[in-house]
Order: sequence, then structure tokens, then C-alpha cells
Amino acid sequence: MTILPFLWTEILIPVAALIGIGFALIQWYIVSCISVSPARASESGGDDYLLEDGPDGADAMIKCAEIQKAISVGANSFLFTEYKYLGVFLGLFAIIIFVFLGSVENFSTSPQPCVYNTSEECAPALITAAFTTVAFILGVVTSVLSGYLGMKIATYANARTTLEARKGVGKAFIAAFRSGSVMGFLLAADGLLVLYIAINLFKIYYKTEWEGLFEAITGYGLGGSSVALFGRVGGGIYTKAADVGADLVGKVERNIPEDDPRNPAVIADNVGDNVGDIAGMGSDLFGSFAESSCAALVVASISSFGTSHDFTAMCFPLLISSMGIVVCLITTLFATDFYEIKEVNQIEPALKRQLIISTALMTLGILLVCFLALPSSFTIYNLGSTPKVVKWWHLFFCVAVGLWAGLIIGYTTEYFTSNAYSPVQDVADSCRTGAATNIIFGLALGYKSVIIPIFAIAVAIYVSFALAVFYGIAVAALGMLSTIATGLAIDAYGPISDNAGGIAEMAGMSHHIRERTDALDAAGNTTAAIGKGFAIGSAALVSLALFGAYVSRASLTSVDVLSAKVFIGLIVGAMLPYWFSAMTMKSVGKAALSMVEEVRRQFNTIPGLMEGINNPDYATCVKISTDASIKEMIPPGALVMVTPLVVGILFGVETLAGLLAGALVSGVQIAISASNTGGAWDNAKKYIEAGASEHARSLGPKGSDAHKAAVIGDTVGDPLKDTSGPSLNILIKLMAVESLVFAPFFAAHGGLLFKIG
Amino acid sequence: MTILPFLWTEILIPVAALIGIGFALIQWYIVSCISVSPARASESGGDDYLLEDGPDGADAMIKCAEIQKAISVGANSFLFTEYKYLGVFLGLFAIIIFVFLGSVENFSTSPQPCVYNTSEECAPALITAAFTTVAFILGVVTSVLSGYLGMKIATYANARTTLEARKGVGKAFIAAFRSGSVMGFLLAADGLLVLYIAINLFKIYYKTEWEGLFEAITGYGLGGSSVALFGRVGGGIYTKAADVGADLVGKVERNIPEDDPRNPAVIADNVGDNVGDIAGMGSDLFGSFAESSCAALVVASISSFGTSHDFTAMCFPLLISSMGIVVCLITTLFATDFYEIKEVNQIEPALKRQLIISTALMTLGILLVCFLALPSSFTIYNLGSTPKVVKWWHLFFCVAVGLWAGLIIGYTTEYFTSNAYSPVQDVADSCRTGAATNIIFGLALGYKSVIIPIFAIAVAIYVSFALAVFYGIAVAALGMLSTIATGLAIDAYGPISDNAGGIAEMAGMSHHIRERTDALDAAGNTTAAIGKGFAIGSAALVSLALFGAYVSRASLTSVDVLSAKVFIGLIVGAMLPYWFSAMTMKSVGKAALSMVEEVRRQFNTIPGLMEGINNPDYATCVKISTDASIKEMIPPGALVMVTPLVVGILFGVETLAGLLAGALVSGVQIAISASNTGGAWDNAKKYIEAGASEHARSLGPKGSDAHKAAVIGDTVGDPLKDTSGPSLNILIKLMAVESLVFAPFFAAHGGLLFKIG
Repeated sequence: MTILPFLWTEILIPVAALIGIGFALIQWYIVSCISVSPARASESGGDDYLLEDGPDGADAMIKCAEIQKAISVGANSFLFTEYKYLGVFLGLFAIIIFVFLGSVENFSTSPQPCVYNTSEECAPALITAAFTTVAFILGVVTSVLSGYLGMKIATYANARTTLEARKGVGKAFIAAFRSGSVMGFLLAADGLLVLYIAINLFKIYYKTEWEGLFEAITGYGLGGSSVALFGRVGGGIYTKAADVGADLVGKVERNIPEDDPRNPAVIADNVGDNVGDIAGMGSDLFGSFAESSCAALVVASISSFGTSHDFTAMCFPLLISSMGIVVCLITTLFATDFYEIKEVNQIEPALKRQLIISTALMTLGILLVCFLALPSSFTIYNLGSTPKVVKWWHLFFCVAVGLWAGLIIGYTTEYFTSNAYSPVQDVADSCRTGAATNIIFGLALGYKSVIIPIFAIAVAIYVSFALAVFYGIAVAALGMLSTIATGLAIDAYGPISDNAGGIAEMAGMSHHIRERTDALDAAGNTTAAIGKGFAIGSAALVSLALFGAYVSRASLTSVDVLSAKVFIGLIVGAMLPYWFSAMTMKSVGKAALSMVEEVRRQFNTIPGLMEGINNPDYATCVKISTDASIKEMIPPGALVMVTPLVVGILFGVETLAGLLAGALVSGVQIAISASNTGGAWDNAKKYIEAGASEHARSLGPKGSDAHKAAVIGDTVGDPLKDTSGPSLNILIKLMAVESLVFAPFFAAHGGLLFKIG
Repeated sequence: MTILPFLWTEILIPVAALIGIGFALIQWYIVSCISVSPARASESGGDDYLLEDGPDGADAMIKCAEIQKAISVGANSFLFTEYKYLGVFLGLFAIIIFVFLGSVENFSTSPQPCVYNTSEECAPALITAAFTTVAFILGVVTSVLSGYLGMKIATYANARTTLEARKGVGKAFIAAFRSGSVMGFLLAADGLLVLYIAINLFKIYYKTEWEGLFEAITGYGLGGSSVALFGRVGGGIYTKAADVGADLVGKVERNIPEDDPRNPAVIADNVGDNVGDIAGMGSDLFGSFAESSCAALVVASISSFGTSHDFTAMCFPLLISSMGIVVCLITTLFATDFYEIKEVNQIEPALKRQLIISTALMTLGILLVCFLALPSSFTIYNLGSTPKVVKWWHLFFCVAVGLWAGLIIGYTTEYFTSNAYSPVQDVADSCRTGAATNIIFGLALGYKSVIIPIFAIAVAIYVSFALAVFYGIAVAALGMLSTIATGLAIDAYGPISDNAGGIAEMAGMSHHIRERTDALDAAGNTTAAIGKGFAIGSAALVSLALFGAYVSRASLTSVDVLSAKVFIGLIVGAMLPYWFSAMTMKSVGKAALSMVEEVRRQFNTIPGLMEGINNPDYATCVKISTDASIKEMIPPGALVMVTPLVVGILFGVETLAGLLAGALVSGVQIAISASNTGGAWDNAKKYIEAGASEHARSLGPKGSDAHKAAVIGDTVGDPLKDTSGPSLNILIKLMAVESLVFAPFFAAHGGLLFKIG
């Protein structure tokens, strides 16, 4: 059926994953050669001039190493605390999965007729419940690993980037980018490898009964996203409580620079970057990858090649991801080896070039995979309506439209959040009349920035659905995520540079080092926004694919808005992102208030703190952020995890379908607008601070009224862009994948309220 | 069939309308007895002490009259300019209606088979197109009249309320409330009367062909809402440009009180209250009333009593509104005659009592109307599925659930926006750490305030749909709007009191007068938020009813989210409120910026302005607001009016159905959260200013850092609560009613893109 034989598929996927892991390890090794100890640096014959006396000499190295250690210890301890709570919660949830799914056939252990092909016998629900639980745990573990490894490399690389900045901006850029790519490749490869191994292990039991096999595999997506939810929310609250608290007292009240070592919250702020923007985002994108793969697999399992057991075609999603790793590897070399950055203004183009190169190469890669790994023609069974015959090149367009829609979303995000263009400049200009107009313009910008991404997503949905129904949408999501290793590298580069700047400031290094790290950081701000755009866009497609799979699994033939059951789901679903955002924003606000009080207390009670004679008590601030985020992540997390269960059990599959659709179409808008509003405010502030144009100088300098207004906007944007906004992706995805996993249970036992009525 | 005979129905409806108009005229007469001329006051033997020398004496009266005239002239001239542009735009639109609907049967003039009962012959589409156009023009004229009369009475009553405040807070309250009720009753009665006359006139041609008759009548709703759209948007931009501009320079930069006569934008600000909050809101609620009546009528026209031509049952929606007028009349007497306000803190309870009394009385009224005017059992034809048999008391529950859901929404709004409760107090408390935390807490409050109203709407939808399908939803909307006269009276009372305070300040009247008007105003803030809650809640129900009617008219049997055509409509529809809000907020921001520059210019260039020696140039500020709002209302207005046409023509009825559902479920959330966030910020500021508790005093006084932070929040909230938020109701409703009117055209000629593909 397919050109690529079964055996090759079995070899190629793990080989690609291992190549990815190997590449990541090589990059890590190269980064590790940068020494942070003066003794080792002189042994290994480093550039001696860097060890001479002066603000950037040997003493600075020792200081950098100390600060790095403090950040690393803080991040480690937070993640361990977070994972401990997570372990309890998700352990309970694993039991729920097993019991609920096991109850579908009343815990019978004898084979049952299959769902789609009732003439055959399938494994009992109890067995599939067990496998689903195992897949869930695998997803949880892989997701935890993704976040943890990302945090490790980031806290390992931050001080090294600072030290490399002494040699020039190019060296620092490569150090940061290389470290980012370690995370990108480890995550992409690990996710793929674990999924591949799980499928092959599960196959030993299920043999050719792929319906049950791939139904069980969906637990992997649920596990991945569950961790991501708490990682994003907890990490997001942590980082923004520290950031807002540090800024409100340090910058606004005490007039000391960002990352000043006298600020008691400064270590917590730097820890936050690593647990929120690195670990949280790593789990998030791993979740998206796992879910889109699972959605594609579960839809494919009842396609013509699924029922005829064509393993290569079945593994098409994994082959696309394998190709993605190879493409991203080549793309990375363009940043680290083929080109060299010499000037500050080459950084942002270099990062943007990564996106274009990977997208262009991947388009060819997709074509190749489609040609080799798909039957020339196959059938997708659509729900209720006639089966859809799909040609191999139809699927190429599905994957490619997702990939390119991602690029359009990325570039739109850049236009609305980079201070090189008029939208952010307009927002900066509105600071002339104070903080109020800044907020009004910023909110308007965020709302406006939704338009093009939504049209891009709508086109991607229409094209991929028209060509291959829900399988098309699932592979479109996969297409958008196929260059995930590059996307993550670019994304992780940002917080690493941010930390590097913080360390330079705290170690008291010279002004030109700080200038170089600031330039790295500014470029990182825009790419972070682009990364969030990708994450949201892919979340929308993934959720829709999961929604399709859920509907199919729940045996619904239509989700009719004209039915009151569906409509109330729709309107309540559209409300959920607001409820969730209310919780997370209030949490950040509350945590920031206690941080502000602690920082003020230290400034007022520790003598000689402002003069730099005495050190602040960093640990208390770290503890406040940790405690607040752990406590505050539970209610929004529970809202997302419990809602599908409650709705499914009480109102049944139709209302739940409405709920998912409502949450999706409403959540994606808030997520995009929140991220972009926050990014724009941040860069409007940076625009005034940098003073690179006549217009910017007329608003500045730092400390002017317009700048103060811009700082207020930036502070408001913090929870929007780093807590609420990005967490909404996960809300959308997680409710969809959870509904899919529990669909058999809801179909069997759900809708209690309407059954009584 | 019904207990109430045909003839009685024909008599009762116009009699109720005339009673309403008569009552309004009596109230107007009583208000007009308050003299604003010292000469006339002494002639008529007024309280002589009020004419003695002093800040509140005869000179103050003359000044009040002058200011009143300036406000009235400004409001008049703006409305005339607005209506001129509106005339051109809606004239063109009337032509589009006629041509598009006429083209459905290719402008044939011979009778055609009916849509629902194809065995009978119906009037040709060309004739119905003509009648629809006439109904549209009637709706436009009535809506313009509603807004204009409201503005007239408000600008007539503002100075009179100020002058009455000299006699005590009770007198001033009654003057303001009476004037508000003039508007409420005129609007409710006019809307009912014109609709009644139109039905009876159209019946002369259509005779028993009620399908066509009530299809044509839907034009009335479209006309009403079209005016409301431009009224809300234009008026909203006008009032907030002036308000934000006046505050940013006057309060923040120059430290002069609100409504200080030295502020050049002060007259524009007071004009704004009348054109935005009075005229705009009047048109808005008239639109809701017209649309919910039309939705109920068009659904009823194909029910069992519609096809059997039972006129009394058919007129059930109009009888409910007639009963509403009578109930509200009694309710009003409780405020103006049965009770007397003696203390400042009795105002808010008195206004809230109005809501409870009218809701309780109306519940009995509904029961009576249902019993008398409905057949004991009848059949509603549901789309695609089996016909629904409905008992008369089922319909009672439908209307009542809407009525009471409105009350719940109103009270939730009060809880989240009144500074008597913890949510607003928390927001005020967050001002301690500056404007940024105030904004974060305020946004979170707005998001949170969505939860209960959405559940109330969901329950109302579920119950009314379960009992009587889309007819149930239409009458539930009607139930929520049945006490519109009271709602409007309470609502209009707010801006009148606001103006009264402004006039007292500008006329230099004594401090205790200002205190009384401030107390009236503070209560008005909360009731304004309640009014907006009603408007949004009813808009959601009305839109859903219109949506049902549209789907029925477009012959869709389902609107399946699983179809890509519908889904892309859903996600793009959910985006539209963001696009629209981006436009309106940016417009307010831009207009406010030019206002700020003008006000600054006057302060800098007019010598002796700050010292009160020279007068500012009020007219230029009025002109800036007028020009900006006329110019800026066009793009958002066009977005709303054109989108359904474009989508219907290019993508067809299914995508349009998705679009409507998406805009509805997404827009209602933004509308509620925007209104409540803005209201909460306003009252958080007032809470600090009033300093009524230990906590409030710890944040104040006026001019403290916390108060400055609160002022920034209030300014951000202005466009949210008075421009974007309330305009979104109309976006939702208008797109739905427009789709309904054009449904035959789209069904015949729409969906060009998919026809090609």
C-alpha cells in the first residue's frame, strides 16, 4: 500500500528521535565548555584578558556562578514542590480514569463487541481503562521531564550566556540559542520516542485491534496536558507575582533599575522566568504535540488503512514529527554554524530567518513523507455522513496549510508586538496622555490583533476539513507543530537571555555587557510573542481535531446549535475562559500584593539595603512566590479538570460537545488578545527606554511621565501575557482531550440530569 | 379559542399605549411646573427664600437656565448631525432591502407558492420586500423619535433637578425620576403603538396571509436596531471622548474638580450624557423591544393559532407589553407618590424597590395575560423535528423565567459594581499598590461577574426552549423587557442626576446642593450598570430568538458545528466582537487625545482661564466631540451592517448561522465584563472619594496616590462601560435581525463561493 515498508517505519522513527537526542546532547556539551569558574577557565587556557581585574573579571565570574546557583536552587525547589502536589492530584486523577473507564462495561473482563465494527470482538473496557491509565502516566512523566530538563538547561546556560557576552554579542547569542535548542530537541525527540515505544508495547497486547489500542494511547495526550496546565498556571503565577512585585517597589517606588541586586524579589523574578516561561512552556508544547498526534492516531484508527492495519500509514503523524526533527536540525545549523551574528541588529532577523527556513524546508519534507508513507488513496470515515476518499497529496495540503497558517500567525504577532511597527509605536505615543490612554490603546491593539490569526485558522480549518475531514484538521495541527524543535529553541532563548541580563546586573558587570544582553532580550520578547501565537494557533487546531475525535467516540452524528442542550453548553463554554482568567489574574494580583508588602518591609527594616551595604533576604521572596503559586494554581486547575467530568456526567455528551466548541471559539480570542496586548505594552515601554528614534526620544527618557505610564501598562500586561493568556491554550486543549478520553464513560453513564427529567 | 375576544384585543392594546403616553405627558407637565426663571417663580408664588441673594438664589437660577440651554443646544445639534448621516446611510440600506428581497423571485409580481405551506399561494416577494422596507422605515423613525424625545426631556429636566435640590434631596429625586419615567413610558408606548398600527395596516393588504405579513414586520426590528447601533456607537464615542478628555486634563493635570466651569470640555461632557446614555440607550432598548416582538410574531405566524388566524393569541407579545405598561405605571407611583425620600441613603433602596415591585406585579400580570390571551393548548412548529404541543401555562413559565432571569442579572450586576460590597472594595484596596494592580483586579472582577448572568441566561434558554422551542425563547426575551418602562425610568434617572450635579457645580451653587446631587448620581451609577445588565441579558435572548426565526426562514434543519462551513462561521463570529471593540475603543482613545490637546491648548493660551476671569471656548470642544463621533461611528457601524450581507452572499446561510451563534456566545461575555469592569472602577473611585468607612478613608482622600490610581482605572473603564460594552448588545441583535430579514434572499441567491467550489 505505501512505498515506505513497515520495517523502515519501525526503524526510521526511533532513529530520528535518537538523532534529535544526540544533537541536543552535543549542543549541551558545547555549552558546558563555557566555564563559570576562574580556576577552570585559566586551566583550559581561556582568553586570559577575561580573568583580569575589573567589573568583568574573575570576581564577576565567581559572582555569576553564585547567582546562577541561587536561581537554579530556587527553580529546582519550586518544581519539586509543584510536582509533589501534582503527583497527588494526578495520582487521584489516574484512579478516576481507571475506575470511570473501567465502569463502562461494568468492570466486565470478557471481550465485548467493538464500537465501530460491532461484528468483531474487542478487548473489554476494563483492559483499555488500564492501558489508558498507563498512557496517562507516561504522558505525565514525559511532560514533567520536558519541563524539568528545560529548566535545568536554562539555569545552566544563563550565567554562561552572561560570561560569553564579554566576548561579543555573537558569542552570547550562540550560547543562548544553543541552550534553547537543547530544550527544543530533547522535548521533540523524547515526546516522539516515548509515544513510539508506548504504541509498540501496547501493540503486543492489542495486536490488530487498533481501535482499542489508539483509544488507550489518547491517555498520553491527557497526561501531557494535565502537567502543562499546572505548569503554566503555577509557573505563570510564580513568575508574574515576583516580576510585578519587584517592579512595583523597585522600579516605581525606589527608582532602582530592573534586576538590581538590592531588590529582594530579584532572585524570585529570575527563578520565575525558568519555571514559568521555560518549564511551563515546555510542558505546554509537549502537550500540544502529544495531543495532536493522539487525535490524528485515533481518527486514523478507523480509516481504511487503520482497519487494514497498514502500520506505515498509521504512523504518518509520527513520521511527520520525525521529519520535523531532521528539518529543525538543519535549520539550527543556520543559526549556530552557517551564519555569524556580529551586530546587535542582526539578532532579530536571525531568529525570524529560523522560522522561514524551517517552514520552507518542512514543506518539502511533508511532501516527501506524504508521498512515501501514505497509500495513494484511502478512506476516512466521517461521522454520520458519507466516507471521504482522500488522495495522498490532499493530505500534503492539509499538513502544509497548518504549517503556513502557523507562520502567518507568527508574523502577525510580530507585527502587533514588535516596536519596529506602528501598532506598538501608537501605544507608546498614547503614553503622552498618561497610563489610562495607554491601557485603552493597548487593549484595542490586542483585540485588533485577533483578526488575521482567526482568519488564518479559519482557512486552515476549512481547507483541511474539506480535504480530509477531522483527520485533515489533526494533521494540520501536526503541521503547525512539526517545527516545534526550532520554535522551542527560539522561545527558550528569550528567558535565557533575560536571565543572562539579570545576572550581569546583579554581578555588577560593566555597562556594555548589559547592553549586549539587553539586545538579546529585546529580540527574545518578540520571539516569545511569536511562540505564544504558535502555541495558541496549534491549540485551536488540536482542540478541534480532539473535538472531532470525541464526537466520533461519543457516537454523536451532529452537534446542532439549534438544540437547547448544545446551545447552553456553547454559551457556558464561551464563559469558561473568562472564569478561568478571572481566577488566574486575581491570583497574580494577590500574590503580587503580598510580594510588594514583603519587598517594602525589607527596604524599610533592613538597614543599609538601599546603600548596598547589606544583602536583602532573597529566600523569603522566593518562598512567597512558591507558596502563592502552589496554593493559587489549584482552583483554576480544578475548574479545567473537573468541568468536563461534571458536564459529561450531569448533562451528557451533547452539552459537553457544545461546551467544548464554546470554550474553543471564545478562548482562542482571549488568549491571542491577552498575549499580544501584554507583549505590545512590554515593547512600548522598551521602545521609550531605548529611545532609538526621534519619536521615541520625545516620549522618554526613563523616568519621564510617559515612561511611567508605559511601566504601568507593562505591569498590567504581565499576568495577561504570561499567566492568563498562555494558560487558556491548555484550558481549550485539555478539556477536549479529557472529553475524548472519558467519551466512552459519558456515552454509557452520562447525562444524569436529562435522564431524570 | 382564547378567552379574550378579538375585538377586546384590538381595543386593549392601543388603550394601554395611550395610557402610557398620557401618563408620560402628565409626568412631563408636573416637571414643567418647576420654574427655571426667577421672574416666573416669584409670579407663581414659589418659595421666596430660594430667590434671596446667595449662591443658590435668583442669579444661580439664571445661570442654571443658561447652562441648560447650552447643553440642550449642543445635544440637539449633535443629534441632528447624527441623524442626517444616519438618514443617508439607512436610506441606502432601505434600497438594498427592497432590491435584495425583491430579487428573491426575480422581481416577479405574480403570486407564488408559500414557503411553509407550499400548496397555498402567497404574495410575491416583491410586495413583501416593499412592506419590509416600509416597516424598516417605521422602525427607524420610531427609534429616532425614542432617542430624540429622551434627550429632550433629559435636557429639560437636568436644571430643574438642580433647582429642586435646593428644597431637599427628596424633591430632587422625584424630579429626576419623574423625568426618567417620561422617557420610559413614551418609549414603551410609542414602540407598542406604532407596531400595532403597522400590523393592522399591513393586514389590510395581506388579509389572512400571516406568513408574509409578519415576515414584513421584522423590518421594524431591523430599523429600530440600526438606529440604535449608530446611536450607541456615535453617542458612546461622543460622551467618552469628552469625559476622558475633560478628566485627563482637568482632574489629573490641573487638579480642578469635575464639572468645573473653567474646564473647556465640561459642556461637551454634559452633552455627552444626554446623547450617549439617554438617546443611545433609548434607541437600544426600543430596538430590543421591537426585535423580541418581531421574533415572537414571526415564529408564531406558523404556529397552530397563526395558521388558524387567531388574532388575540397572535397578539400575545403585544398584550404582554400592554400589561407591562400598566404594571410599570403602578410601580412608578410607589416612587413618586406612595413613598417619600427623606435621606440620602434611601435613594438606592427606592430604585431597587422599583425593580422588585415591577417584577412581582408583572409575574401576576403575565399569568393573567397567558390565561386570557392564549388557547389552552396549541402547537409550535419546530424546525425539522416534531411539532411541539404547548399548554397556556407553559408559556407563563417561559415569560416568567425571562423576567426573573433579568432580575438575577440585575442584582448580580449590582453586587459586582456597587461599592457597598466586597468586589468593588477589593478593587479600591488594590489601588494601594498603584494603577497597575487596580487595572488587573478590575479586569478580573469583570471576567468573574460574567459567571452568574451566563448561568441565568442558560437556565432561561433551557427552560423556555424545552417548553415552547424558539417561541419560548422569544417570549422569555419579551418577559425580560416587559418592565422596560420602569427599567428605562431608572436608567435615564442616572444621566439626569449626573447633569444636575454638573449644572450645580458650573452655576457655582453651594456645597450642600452638590452633595445632594452627588448622592443622586452615585445611586444612578449602580442602576445604570443594572440597566446595562438587563440590556445585555435581553439582547442574548432576543438574538437567540431571532436566530431561531432566521434558521427557520432559511429552511435550515440543523446548524451542525461538525460541519466546517458552520465552524468557520462560529470562530469568525466569536472574533467579531473583538474587532468591533478594537474599533470603538481606539476611536474613543483617538477622540480623547484630540480633546486633551484642545483643552490643554485653551488652558495654555487663554489668559485668566484658571483664575476664572475669562471663559473657556466650550463650542470648540463640542465640535471636536461631534466631528470625531460622526466620523468614527461609520467603520464599526459598517462592520456590523455589512458582515451578515457579505457572509450570507459569499458563504451562505449555514456559515452565517455559525457566525451569529459565535458572535452571540462570545459577544455577551465581553459586553457583560466590559460594563461591569467599568462600573466597578467608577465606583471604586467614588468609594475612595466618599470615604464613608474606615477602610475607604485609609485609601483617600482625593488626590492621594491610591485615589490617583483609582482615577486611571475609572478613565480606562469609560470606553469599556459606555462605548464598547453596550454597543456589543446591538452588534449581537442587529446581525441576527438583519440575517432574518435577508434570509429569503440568502436562501435564494447566497453562498456564491461554495457554489463555485
